[in-house]
This record gives sequence, C-alpha cells and structure tokens, in this order.
Amino acid sequence: MSTELSGGTAGPDALRPLLELVLAGLRAGAERRGGPIPAGSPALIAEQTAAALGITEDEDALLRLTEFLAYGSADPADPACAAHLHCPPLAVAVAADLAVSALNPSQDSWDQAPAATALETALLAELAELVGFQRGRAAGVLTSGGTESNLMGLMLARDQILGGTVELDGLPAGRRPRIFASRAAHFSVQRAAALLGLGENAVRAVPVDRELRMDAGQLAAALAEAVRAGETPIAVVATAGTTDTGAVDPLHEAAELAARYGAWLHVDAAYGGGALLSDRLAPLLDGIGRADSVSLDWHKLGWQPVAAGVFLVRQAQTYASLARRAVYLNPADDEQAGYPSLLGLSLRTTRRADAFKIAVTLRTLGRAGLGRLVDSCHELALGAAEVVRADPALELHCEPILTTVVFRYLPASGDPAEADRINAELRRVLLREGRAVVGRTELPGEGPGRVRLKLTLLNPHATAAEVAAVPAAVVRAARSLSDGT
Amino acid sequence: MSTELSGGTAGPDALRPLLELVLAGLRAGAERRGGPIPAGSPALIAEQTAAALGITEDEDALLRLTEFLAYGSADPADPACAAHLHCPPLAVAVAADLAVSALNPSQDSWDQAPAATALETALLAELAELVGFQRGRAAGVLTSGGTESNLMGLMLARDQILGGTVELDGLPAGRRPRIFASRAAHFSVQRAAALLGLGENAVRAVPVDRELRMDAGQLAAALAEAVRAGETPIAVVATAGTTDTGAVDPLHEAAELAARYGAWLHVDAAYGGGALLSDRLAPLLDGIGRADSVSLDWHKLGWQPVAAGVFLVRQAQTYASLARRAVYLNPADDEQAGYPSLLGLSLRTTRRADAFKIAVTLRTLGRAGLGRLVDSCHELALGAAEVVRADPALELHCEPILTTVVFRYLPASGDPAEADRINAELRRVLLREGRAVVGRTELPGEGPGRVRLKLTLLNPHATAAEVAAVPAAVVRAARSLSDGT
Repeated sequence: MSTELSGGTAGPDALRPLLELVLAGLRAGAERRGGPIPAGSPALIAEQTAAALGITEDEDALLRLTEFLAYGSADPADPACAAHLHCPPLAVAVAADLAVSALNPSQDSWDQAPAATALETALLAELAELVGFQRGRAAGVLTSGGTESNLMGLMLARDQILGGTVELDGLPAGRRPRIFASRAAHFSVQRAAALLGLGENAVRAVPVDRELRMDAGQLAAALAEAVRAGETPIAVVATAGTTDTGAVDPLHEAAELAARYGAWLHVDAAYGGGALLSDRLAPLLDGIGRADSVSLDWHKLGWQPVAAGVFLVRQAQTYASLARRAVYLNPADDEQAGYPSLLGLSLRTTRRADAFKIAVTLRTLGRAGLGRLVDSCHELALGAAEVVRADPALELHCEPILTTVVFRYLPASGDPAEADRINAELRRVLLREGRAVVGRTELPGEGPGRVRLKLTLLNPHATAAEVAAVPAAVVRAARSLSDGT
Repeated sequence: MSTELSGGTAGPDALRPLLELVLAGLRAGAERRGGPIPAGSPALIAEQTAAALGITEDEDALLRLTEFLAYGSADPADPACAAHLHCPPLAVAVAADLAVSALNPSQDSWDQAPAATALETALLAELAELVGFQRGRAAGVLTSGGTESNLMGLMLARDQILGGTVELDGLPAGRRPRIFASRAAHFSVQRAAALLGLGENAVRAVPVDRELRMDAGQLAAALAEAVRAGETPIAVVATAGTTDTGAVDPLHEAAELAARYGAWLHVDAAYGGGALLSDRLAPLLDGIGRADSVSLDWHKLGWQPVAAGVFLVRQAQTYASLARRAVYLNPADDEQAGYPSLLGLSLRTTRRADAFKIAVTLRTLGRAGLGRLVDSCHELALGAAEVVRADPALELHCEPILTTVVFRYLPASGDPAEADRINAELRRVLLREGRAVVGRTELPGEGPGRVRLKLTLLNPHATAAEVAAVPAAVVRAARSLSDGT
C-alpha cells in the first residue's frame, strides 16, 4: 500500500506513475461516457457510485475511481454541456493546480507559504488594477467563489456602516440595516444577510428591466423610502453580469446613490468580471472602479478549475473588522520582524494557494490571450441566439450580453402551463439520455414556475455548428414529449 | 500559446506534457531549496517572486513558476518542517485531486456533478459512522476547513436555539445569546461569533487545565452564571484536539451540560478527528457521537492536500435554516423527479469535489492504513518529548497527547523576558537560515508574550533521529543568539 508523499525531491517520482493512472482513468471514463453527461437517472448513478466504492484497500482504487468520476461527470469541455457557469478548465491551469496540491502551501501564515504568500499579494495588485483600483491602496484575497466574496463585502459593509463590532443583542434601536440589490441579484446576497444576522428581509429587491438590469430610478426610490421609514441603508449590491442574462447594473448610478446615502457599494462581478479581459466587452463594466468591494470568479470566465474566487476592496483600511491576531500564526513581533500575514484578509484559516494557477494562466496567455477566449464565447452566444431566433418553435428572451442565451420552447398549443411543463421535462429528457446539459431558470417578474431554458457558453473551442445542435436537440426532445402526450 | 482544455477524451493528451513540466519544476525547485524552507528574509522572497512573475506571455511560465513555487515553499515533507497543522499530502491523494481539477465538477447542482454528488453523499455517510452518528439520520458537507465548519455549527446553533430567521434588529429583548468555549478553543469561534452578528463578546472563555483541557466544573459554573444573568446559552464548543497540545475537552460532560441548558453541542475535532482512524487513540474522543455537529479536517491528520474539511450534523433536519431554493440550481420539480441537490448543505454555491481525494485515499489505504500513519506521528511526538526532557536547556510543557510537542528554550540567566525574546528570535533565525520551521505559541493563563515553541509532527515517514535534530537545532540557535548578546 502506497503511503508515499508528494513533497520533497522524491515526490515527483512518487507522483509520476500515479498521474499516469489518472490520465488513463480520465480517458477511459470520457470514452465510456461518450457525451456531455452519463445517460441514466440520478438513482442509477447513485447505484453505480455505490458499486464503484465497493472496494476495500485496493491498489487500483485511484484508477478505478478516477475512471468512474470521469464517466460520471458533466463535462464542460463537451459543447453540449452548456447549462451553468461551470467552465472547462485550461490544461495549463489544471497542471498548475497540481503543483499546489503537491506542495500544499497554506496561506494563513508566511511560514506555511513563503512564495505563495508573496505571489498572492502580487497577483491581487494586478487584479486590483484590472478593476480600476489603485495598486497601493487596494487589498483583497482569493476566495472559494462569488458567494464567499459577496459575504465578505456585506460583512465589511455591516461593520463599516454600523460601526465596529456588531452584536445581535446590542445594536442601538432604530438602526434597522438594509441592503439594496436587484431582483436578479444572486441568491447569495440573501444568504449572506441571513448568515450575518441581518435576516433575509433586510434585503430590498429593486426592480429590473427585461434584460435583468437594475433600474436606477427604482434604486433611488427604494433608498429614499427606506430612509423615510427610519431604516439604515448599509449596502448597495450592483450585479455586473447576472447569472441568467449577463446584464450589468448601472454602475455609475449605483455608485452615486450609494455615496449619497452613505452605503457601501459592492459589485458582484463573479460572472461579468471576465469581460475585463476583453477589449470589446470591458466597456460594459465602466464604473466598477468606484466600488468599495468587488467579487470576481476566475472559475467562470477565466477557465480555472474551482476554486478561483477573488475579493477586492478599494481601500485596504476598510478591512479592519476582519483583522485577527493568532499567537501561533501572526504574533506581533514576527510582523515587526518583517513576516507578512494574510490571515486578516480571509474568512478562512487554512487556505489553498488558488492564486498560483491564475498567475500561471495569466503569464502563459496574457490578458489578451484570455480576452480572445472571452470573445469566442461571446460570439458563440450571438450565433446561438440567431439560431434560436430563426426557429419558430423557440422564443429568444433577449439578445446575449455576455455568453448566455435565454430562450424557451413554444408548444403549438400556445398554452403557458404546457410550455412550462414541456420545457422542464425536455431538459430532464436530455439529461437522462445523456445528450445535452441545458440550463433552466425563472425570470424575476414572470411569477414562479415560468420555465426558461438557458445556454451558458463557456467553451471557447466549441464550433458554431456544435452549439447550434443544442437548440435543435431541445426542439426534438420537446416534440418527442408532445407526441407522447 | 496553449489554450487546450483538460476535459474530454483529448484532455489527457493535452495534460501529459504539462504534468511532466510540473514534475520537473517540483524536483528542480525542491533541489534548489535544499531544506524545509528557502533561506532568506520575507523581503528577499518577495523580491524573488516579483522577478519570477516578471515574464509575459511565456510558454515556459508553467515550468518556471512551478520551480519557483517549489523552491519558495515550506515543505511539510521535510522532517524539519514541523510548525503547523500543515500536513505533507499523500501522493495518491494529490493524484486524485488532479482528476478533480481536470473534470471540474461543481457540487452545487447534480447536472454539474452527477457522480461527484453521489460520491460525496456516500463518503459523508461513512464519516458520520466514524464519529458515531447514525448513518441514515446524519448529514453533512465538505468544507474549506475547521473555520468554515465551526461557523456552520454556530450558525445552526444560533438559528435552532433562537428560532427561525434571526434579524439583527428584530431579536426579542433579553435573549442575549452566548457561546461557551474553552480558553484554548480555536480563534475561529470568536470569528464566527463576529460574522454571525453575535459579537465576539458573546463567547465566554472557560478555563483550562495545564494540558489545555476544558474544566467541566468551570463550564457548569459559567453556564449557570449566564442563565442567572438572563443570557441564553446557544452553544457549547468542545475542542477535540487543541492546536497546541492536542488536548480533548471532556466530551461527555460537555454533552450533558449542553443538553441541560438547551444549548447546541459543537465538537471541533479539526485536528483530533484524525485520532478516530487509530485504534490506540480513538478512545480519546469517546463521546463525540453525542455532538449536534462536528468539524473534521482531513488536511490535518488525514494527509490530504487543502481543502478537505468536513462538517457533520447528528440530525439532518437541524440543517433547515441553510436550505435554499435557487430556480437555476434546484427547482422543486427537478427534485421531485429525483435530482438530488447538495446546495442547501453548504455555505458555498460553486464547490470543488474535495470528497473525491478522501474517498480514493480511504479506498487505497483503508482506515487501518491511515491509522498506522496517525500512530507513527504520535510515536514521533512521544520520542521528541523524550529528547526535549533529556536536554536541560529545554523545558517540556506537557506530555504529547496527539502529535504536538510544546516546549521552550531556557536561557542560563533564567530571566523570563530574556527567554521570551530568545525563543521568538531563535525561531526566526531558523527560518532565515532555512534550517527548520518550528512553531510558536502562547498558552492561555500565561499572559501575553510568554513564548513557547512547538513541534507539530505530521510526517509519518520522518525518523526519530530526524525529528530529534530539530530540538537540537533550537538549542544551537539559542546559544548563537546568547553568545551574540
């Protein structure tokens, strides 16, 4: 039984044969799957999983389980896997991630991660410039994703605006903290409010237009009404790239309103931040540099394996409420002696060096190289929208803004309830048959149960024909269902 | 410029040459380092990092940056790297982690992770049994580590005990929630209280004995006093394996007191949970199955690359306050159709399949194989304690309980302030010279600035002689400093 370690000078030789097993398993599993997702029901996959795990102390476990995981994956490298903000990673980023697994630096103290600490700090300075923050004044940290980044932004907002340490039982009466976000903002905003002890009802949902862009006039009205009602606006969350349509809220107006009401401006650019890599799309995010804090996810439009979240603040000193002194991690005299600590920048303690793969990718492809990938996906979305528009059985919701296409199948009957049932069911048919992974959603303002389908196009190497095959498969599946009813 | 993807049937061939570069970089970097940590100051490493990053759009970036990261790492596979709960990963776990990076499943919806969803669920059922929970009744999730797990436990405690959705401005007067944890509990307990809006002052610090074990009588007294003062005990946090000494709080007494006062019992076994793998050490954690929630970290005594945190609850229904319905991730009709969703089990949305490497490791080595690694590290700690005890220049704080040894250098003068200065400085000397990575800490009850040194022994392949060399290096470094003053 192999108990060899990955580190030291002997680690690479211990790893090499194991990596060959992984590559063999990845290939065999992908061949066995033969499509974007394994055919079959979740119950079948669960049975197969139990069987795959039904081995004990087996030298072949790595090969066998890797093959099973590859077989049982929804593979975003397949052009017909186009449901979620779930990108196919670049091989170079995956290889870089292996170095991190093997060396296992932990970012919570310098003496667990000397180079990785310096490297994360340098990368964040570059990313701060990318969003328009001042290099020397900004700060930030790698996160597990937009949900953690949004939580951090709202936590800092709470602590900055309400002042100092917040206590559930000690808040002066009448502060009634409120957060303003669009109806199309990510649900992690509500989740963060609940976690922070503000309650989900602290979030005021501002109406959006058809493309799901926040209405600045409605934001102004909501803020004014809250203040009249004796509430305290602590944060405005502007979304730069909604999950469904990629819409970008009016960032300048949001910045002006947040400033007028003394609220924190958090910009959730988990998806849309990728537009900053593209000369063509970057203007959509004009104004993002006025944010107090920003979320970016390089595991969306950045082609990194999960996790590659980034949280940035415009002014480092606003981070104060997270600062921590742990005698075993960042003692004061070590810091005086020049040992830096990232501990106070993160909600986590132990933390993987996720900055490394991003740095390697940026140094391999450059911003321009990544921008070309963003543009390819944008073009695929524009092409897919044309395909949808050209098919009378399909209805396009709106022009693509980034790389998603929202649409639905329209049954001949025109009955809305039938449309909802068929769109929901045809998606499951495509999954069960292992033919396509199509997203679904419901749009704010349309009422619950109004099912829309969605393509999220993140594979820059997919061809227009491969992508066009997905709406065609949707129509075929819908017709097979209609025939069957 | 390579923009190949890691997925599909072509992914393995795209990855192979890149992985060879990574292995070459890992070896070259480890050879260049030639010890547990690169010699030099943090300022020097930061300069070297800036130089390493000073390349643009370079095909060699992967090799060059991997070599630099390896050179600039604190390598826990080196026996002289023994400061933190920062383990040297098993090569098999690192290889398994590569499969996860390449396939990039995301655990927030079934259609991003069919097999990985089933696999995580199956692994958690096994781990629930390991801590003594009932397989069918428990629930849990993979986390980024003990800090996130502790936060989840305290969030569920807050929501369960205070009832429903908690709002900062809506809590009935006089609830005054309080958390009880020992003075040696991890600082993430205070952090969680702050994040949750309870305030750090909500945490009552219960005294500990010399080995840092919570005093059950003092816990009983603190709970009684809080209730007399009109406060609401919402949680007792028992630590199973303190970071410094590995002490395990009295779990049965904590369970009885928590039950008596209607409080949630969270057991932080981030470190000590590894003892469950060892027949010899598992009895230390007797009573852990009475917890309402538990933290385990397989990236500590489990030899996984970060992150491999586990959060478990005894009763699945106590998870209710985290449940979320996101129309694009877990629509109700998809769940009715048999599509499971892990979304409501995690604080995160996008989430890496960290369960996979743990499952592969367990199926390769078995619990018994891992238990032997735990026992090896325990024996190394017992041996190192003997070495420390035998040296009149060193003072052992207490017998090792798990795999740590707390001690300090005693200067000939016997002056406590000189001792503190020398112990702090000798640690930095060893770091600067690249000779050893020794931990430091301060113990509760000793006052600030009373510096102790610490070995955290997590390399099961280190020899007793290699480990004994570290206290010897401490003494030599101390004497070089004393001579210099």
